[in-house]
Amino acid sequence: MSPLPHGPPPRVVIIGGGFGGLSAARALKRAPVDITLLDKHNFHLFQPLLYQVATGGLSPANIASPLREILKHQQNTRVLLAEVVDIDTSKRIVKLSDGQVPYECLIVATGAGHNYFGHDQWEPFAPGLKTIEDATQIRRRILLAFEAAERESNPEKVSAWLTFVIVGSGPTGVELAGAVAEIARDTLKHNFRAINPADAHIILVEGMERALPSYPPMLSDQAAKALERLGVTIRTNAMVTDIQADSVTIRSQERTETLVAHTVLWTAGVRASPMGQVLARATRCALDKTGRVIVEPDLSLPKHPEIFVIGDLAHCALKDGAPLPGMAPVAIQQGRYVAQLVQGRLRHKRLPPFRYNDRGNMTTIGRASAVADLRWLRLWGFPAWLAWVFIHLLGLVEYQNRLLVFIQWTWNYFSHNRAARLITGESPLPLDRSHDPLRRPV
Amino acid sequence: MSPLPHGPPPRVVIIGGGFGGLSAARALKRAPVDITLLDKHNFHLFQPLLYQVATGGLSPANIASPLREILKHQQNTRVLLAEVVDIDTSKRIVKLSDGQVPYECLIVATGAGHNYFGHDQWEPFAPGLKTIEDATQIRRRILLAFEAAERESNPEKVSAWLTFVIVGSGPTGVELAGAVAEIARDTLKHNFRAINPADAHIILVEGMERALPSYPPMLSDQAAKALERLGVTIRTNAMVTDIQADSVTIRSQERTETLVAHTVLWTAGVRASPMGQVLARATRCALDKTGRVIVEPDLSLPKHPEIFVIGDLAHCALKDGAPLPGMAPVAIQQGRYVAQLVQGRLRHKRLPPFRYNDRGNMTTIGRASAVADLRWLRLWGFPAWLAWVFIHLLGLVEYQNRLLVFIQWTWNYFSHNRAARLITGESPLPLDRSHDPLRRPV
Repeated sequence: MSPLPHGPPPRVVIIGGGFGGLSAARALKRAPVDITLLDKHNFHLFQPLLYQVATGGLSPANIASPLREILKHQQNTRVLLAEVVDIDTSKRIVKLSDGQVPYECLIVATGAGHNYFGHDQWEPFAPGLKTIEDATQIRRRILLAFEAAERESNPEKVSAWLTFVIVGSGPTGVELAGAVAEIARDTLKHNFRAINPADAHIILVEGMERALPSYPPMLSDQAAKALERLGVTIRTNAMVTDIQADSVTIRSQERTETLVAHTVLWTAGVRASPMGQVLARATRCALDKTGRVIVEPDLSLPKHPEIFVIGDLAHCALKDGAPLPGMAPVAIQQGRYVAQLVQGRLRHKRLPPFRYNDRGNMTTIGRASAVADLRWLRLWGFPAWLAWVFIHLLGLVEYQNRLLVFIQWTWNYFSHNRAARLITGESPLPLDRSHDPLRRPV
Repeated sequence: MSPLPHGPPPRVVIIGGGFGGLSAARALKRAPVDITLLDKHNFHLFQPLLYQVATGGLSPANIASPLREILKHQQNTRVLLAEVVDIDTSKRIVKLSDGQVPYECLIVATGAGHNYFGHDQWEPFAPGLKTIEDATQIRRRILLAFEAAERESNPEKVSAWLTFVIVGSGPTGVELAGAVAEIARDTLKHNFRAINPADAHIILVEGMERALPSYPPMLSDQAAKALERLGVTIRTNAMVTDIQADSVTIRSQERTETLVAHTVLWTAGVRASPMGQVLARATRCALDKTGRVIVEPDLSLPKHPEIFVIGDLAHCALKDGAPLPGMAPVAIQQGRYVAQLVQGRLRHKRLPPFRYNDRGNMTTIGRASAVADLRWLRLWGFPAWLAWVFIHLLGLVEYQNRLLVFIQWTWNYFSHNRAARLITGESPLPLDRSHDPLRRPV
């Protein structure tokens, strides 16, 4: 990628328009390069708020902005709706399912999906939450469970419909559990005649010894207390050993137990996108056990200084050895770093290795409740929630979305309502009182 | 349905939670009856704004309110998510796909669907617009057409992707044509690199001699002029004789012509819901040629004073003979009328026949342009558009939605943007450059 004084500008291809890919593209705005951003969706998704779509608080369009719109005034960039199937590193070509794109520099930022740890047969019964389609599917299942319970007369079957098991108590699991509890206790109040939605059981299953294990123990405690106030039962030290259409089996030190539940949500693990495998085949780079690509300190691939991997797909171990977590701020900073590095190379400048500026983590638990670990300050309850609201509003790319989300949150806060409670997609009827809605393909 | 002094309150079953069914349910709020509202969706849909979802201006949840939420404080009413398969008029039972509901009084308000006039094979190539799923499917097709054009190099194929044919120039057809033209000329400006979206051809096909044939000729003229200013080509006196995945054949007096186009939208006709057939089998009532149930002057069925049919499913001919059009105000007034009639009967009072209070029609054409026929006043251009905005905001059931729609319209108006431009659903990739996206099942 040497600068060519009178040649065409070098071609930078970015795969993935998430936090990493989009931040790289935007940081290259004024660079003398020719950028192609490839994504299989036409929008950038603000994933941290996806659980709010899954629980009817926001609409998909509130957290998804068309990539073309974001980049429309960036003249050096074109966006293509395309699926990458392979990379030819010797010819420097990205192969699409319907074409190909040559590159001088490649930035791969395709993120991660769900990890069922060898039990992919659980996926139809326990969907994960990574895409808009996942979110509307989960919203549909949660709402249909209450509808089915309203139609059911057998108390045991009602209870099975009103039991919600969330597997994994990382931030997404905690946020989903809190939101489902609020839907049951608060949002749906007075909505039903045969059942009381507040009778719902919400069970959060965690394999480690405490909820939010990546947070300081003191904040885990605060989160657990807040969840319990909302009526969530937390089962720690519990491993899921089986999931069926109407049950989850969990094993803890004392015993093995089967919970009868129609609605199971999976947030227990992530696996890097299959693009990691493509890169491993093409460049013989090493992958870690969740499929992430182990990158050099400058986020490039060994022996391939022209290929960078960033975001959830990258295993980027800093000095202390632990890889960076799969979080939006990591991906954004990595995107900017790679953009700087590419611009530096064009001027024959070198950059120090990537350094992560860790500003902390935060997780919301419900109405006016959150935990925030800002490293220099730990917050919980209402102050943490205010910080969370502020940070997440700022993170939305489009100003219109910020305004709409702010108004909906304010409205939902004061009215205890969630307006986006739509059951959409193929007809769910007849409501099979046993398992059918859960058996439909995701 | 005689009042029973000490018996249980009479059971009123309403099928359909659209404008007719919901207005009947709400008007019976204080009546001593036991209401069951059946719908196969969990929400009331504000259909007049569906074209805005289909064209990315609004999100589905902005125009759909959960029926349970609307009726949560109405103690005499329960809502069931259910599909009606038959009616047993002798036992007075509504049969569901998974159960049954007895009634003393039945109000049927299941609306209408698309009518391809014997050419149902056209439906996969030319979807209509009646449901949220229709709207997101049309939005997907419109947006994918521009994406496919951007990837195409053959100019003829680019042109086929950039040709949009809307069949039928009633209000929905005119609104869709105006919105698609604005997307092409305005919203997508600067979004593409290989194509100019403004090169799109938008063709509105009408069988009669003018667009908006149900409006006074002067307003049809104004609408046609406004559409032409937006770049829409109007083909009047033209009958569609064939639709394929990539073409529409139209015959006018002079000639038969095949338009090469990948995106065809169908707004040319409605057919009453299949519930009309169910009623005809059960009660031997007569149907008109579009399947509507011919009702008595009090909207009941002949020989079945306990069954009412209202809204788009009813053929209600007033004194002058022409049946009332399938419009929200007709359905709303009929719902209220039947509610009054039911309450009157409980007190042994009789009501005069249904009378429609016609306040006129309005259709929007685009940004700051509409036509309105208020009977005593005809408006076009900006004043008509202001009236349209005002009336349609008032029509939204939930206050939050009114606020959100108002803000999005204001934003869209000043920014020339449409934020809800998401391609969702199953992956559209690879973008087949010939026909594939159009061949997917709707």
